[in-house]
Amino acid sequence: MSAAAARSVVHSVRVEFGDCDPARIVWFPNYFRWIDAAGHHFFVSCGMPPWHELEKARGILGTPIVDTHARFVATASYGDRLDIAVQVAEWRRSSFVMRHRVTRGETLIMECDEVRIFAAHREDHAPGIRAVPIPEDLRALCS
Amino acid sequence: MSAAAARSVVHSVRVEFGDCDPARIVWFPNYFRWIDAAGHHFFVSCGMPPWHELEKARGILGTPIVDTHARFVATASYGDRLDIAVQVAEWRRSSFVMRHRVTRGETLIMECDEVRIFAAHREDHAPGIRAVPIPEDLRALCS
Amino acid sequence: MSAAAARSVVHSVRVEFGDCDPARIVWFPNYFRWIDAAGHHFFVSCGMPPWHELEKARGILGTPIVDTHARFVATASYGDRLDIAVQVAEWRRSSFVMRHRVTRGETLIMECDEVRIFAAHREDHAPGIRAVPIPEDLRALCS
Amino acid sequence: MSAAAARSVVHSVRVEFGDCDPARIVWFPNYFRWIDAAGHHFFVSCGMPPWHELEKARGILGTPIVDTHARFVATASYGDRLDIAVQVAEWRRSSFVMRHRVTRGETLIMECDEVRIFAAHREDHAPGIRAVPIPEDLRALCS
Repeated sequence: MSAAAARSVVHSVRVEFGDCDPARIVWFPNYFRWIDAAGHHFFVSCGMPPWHELEKARGILGTPIVDTHARFVATASYGDRLDIAVQVAEWRRSSFVMRHRVTRGETLIMECDEVRIFAAHREDHAPGIRAVPIPEDLRALCS
Repeated sequence: MSAAAARSVVHSVRVEFGDCDPARIVWFPNYFRWIDAAGHHFFVSCGMPPWHELEKARGILGTPIVDTHARFVATASYGDRLDIAVQVAEWRRSSFVMRHRVTRGETLIMECDEVRIFAAHREDHAPGIRAVPIPEDLRALCS
Repeated sequence: MSAAAARSVVHSVRVEFGDCDPARIVWFPNYFRWIDAAGHHFFVSCGMPPWHELEKARGILGTPIVDTHARFVATASYGDRLDIAVQVAEWRRSSFVMRHRVTRGETLIMECDEVRIFAAHREDHAPGIRAVPIPEDLRALCS
Repeated sequence: MSAAAARSVVHSVRVEFGDCDPARIVWFPNYFRWIDAAGHHFFVSCGMPPWHELEKARGILGTPIVDTHARFVATASYGDRLDIAVQVAEWRRSSFVMRHRVTRGETLIMECDEVRIFAAHREDHAPGIRAVPIPEDLRALCS
C-alpha cells in the first residue's frame, strides 16, 4: 500500500498561553509533546491493544523513537487550533516511519518524520531493550 | 528540633528562555517543576537510599505530594539564577511539611509549603497506595 | 451572588503518556499547566476581551497569580479524561479567588484555589507591575 | 574554518525524576528543551549581545529554528548527568547549522543538527518575520 493511501488519524490540540515563549509563538519543544500524544492516539484509534497487555502477552514494551526530522514552516500562537494528521508512511523490517503534518486550517505549520522501532526486553535479561521484527498483525491494524 | 535549625539544602537553577511565557516572566508551573527537583536533591543530599532500594527492602514507594501552598512574591525571567532552599519544616506522624524558599540573590521570588506522605503499596494488593508512619531512621537522616 | 451560584466553566483534558512520571501517575506540575489553561478558557468563555485589547484600551496586562493552594486527592494516569470546573469563588477589591475542581467522572482528583490580581504597568513607567482595582464590567462578565 | 575546529561550548544538565516517563527513561521532548537552553548558553558564552539589544540596535529578533534532525542512540534516566556540546557546524548565507552532541560520560545519548536563521521584523511592518544575511561580526564571535 502506498503512503498516500495509508490510514491517517487526526489529533487536534489548542495552543495555550503557557505553550508560548517570550517571542509570543509556540516554543518548539512543545510540538514534540503534541506529536508524541498524536502518535499514541493513532495507535489507540487503530485498535492497538494497550502496551501493558502487549508486554504481558508478547514482551513488547512500546515503540521508542530512534530518529526524528522536523521542518518548521510557519509559527503558531495561543488560541490557535492545530490539527496533527498522523500516518505510518513506511514499514520496514524492524522499524517504521511515522509521519506527522501539523496544520492550522489550510496552513502547514510543521511536519515531522519519526523513525520508531518495536522494542522488547533483551533476551538475556540484561538491562536495556532490543528491536524486534514488526508484528504483522499490529502492522495490519495500523495500515 | 525546631524548624529554624532544620537541615537546609540549596538547589540552584538557571531560568531559561523556554521557561518564560509571552509576558516574558517565568510561567508559574515551572516553579513546581524546579521545586520537585529540589526536593529530590534534598533527599539525595541527606543520604536517603534510592527509592528502588527502599521499595525492595521496605515497600516504600516514595513521598507523594498531598497538599501544596505557594506564594508568588516577585517575578523572575531568563538569565536569572534562582536558589531553592529546602528543609523539612515539620514532621508529623505520617506526613511532613517540606518548605521551599526560592530567592534571586537577596530577593524572595516565591515560597512553597508542601505536605507529603511516605507511601507504600496497599496491604491487600489492591491498586493504589497507602500512607505509612514516617520511618524514624529516614527522618533522622533528613533532620 | 454567592460562590455556589457563580458561573462555572468546564475545561477537559486528556492525560497523555508524557504527562506521567516513572510512578505511572500524572507528574503534579502538569496539573498547574492544565489549571492555567482552564483559567484562560474561563475568561474567553465569559466573553472577556483579549489581553492585548485590554492592554491597549485600559493598560491591563493580565491576571498574574499571587497565591495558590492545591490538594491532591486521587491519582490519575494516561488515558484518563479529566474535567476542570472553574469559577471565581470570591471577588475582593483588587484580587479574586479562582477555584478549580479536577474530576474524573465522579472522582475528585485535585482541587486548587488561586488568588490572582488584575495587573497594569506601573504609573511611573518603572519596570514591574501593580495591582489595580477589579474592573466592574469585567467582574460582571465572569460572575 | 572546518567544523572540527569550530568553537564548542558544553552545557550540563541533570536528569530529574519528572523528566522521565512511565518507561523510566527521559521523555524525548525534554531533550529539545535542554538543547534549546544549550544553544542559548552557547551564544551567551560566545559574547553575543542580548537579543533585546540586538533588536534595538539592528532589528534582529533571534535565531528561530527552521529544521531539526535528531538521532536517539541510548537512553538516559534520572540521576544521570548529561553534557551537551554545542558548535556551529556550518555557516550559510542566511542560515547556520547548530550541532548538539549529548553524552553521559563516554556514552553518546543523542545528537541533533538544527538549522536556524537570523530573523528580523518584516520591512513593510507586516506581521511575521524574515531571514536576514548572517551578520559577519556575530558569526565571528561564534566561530
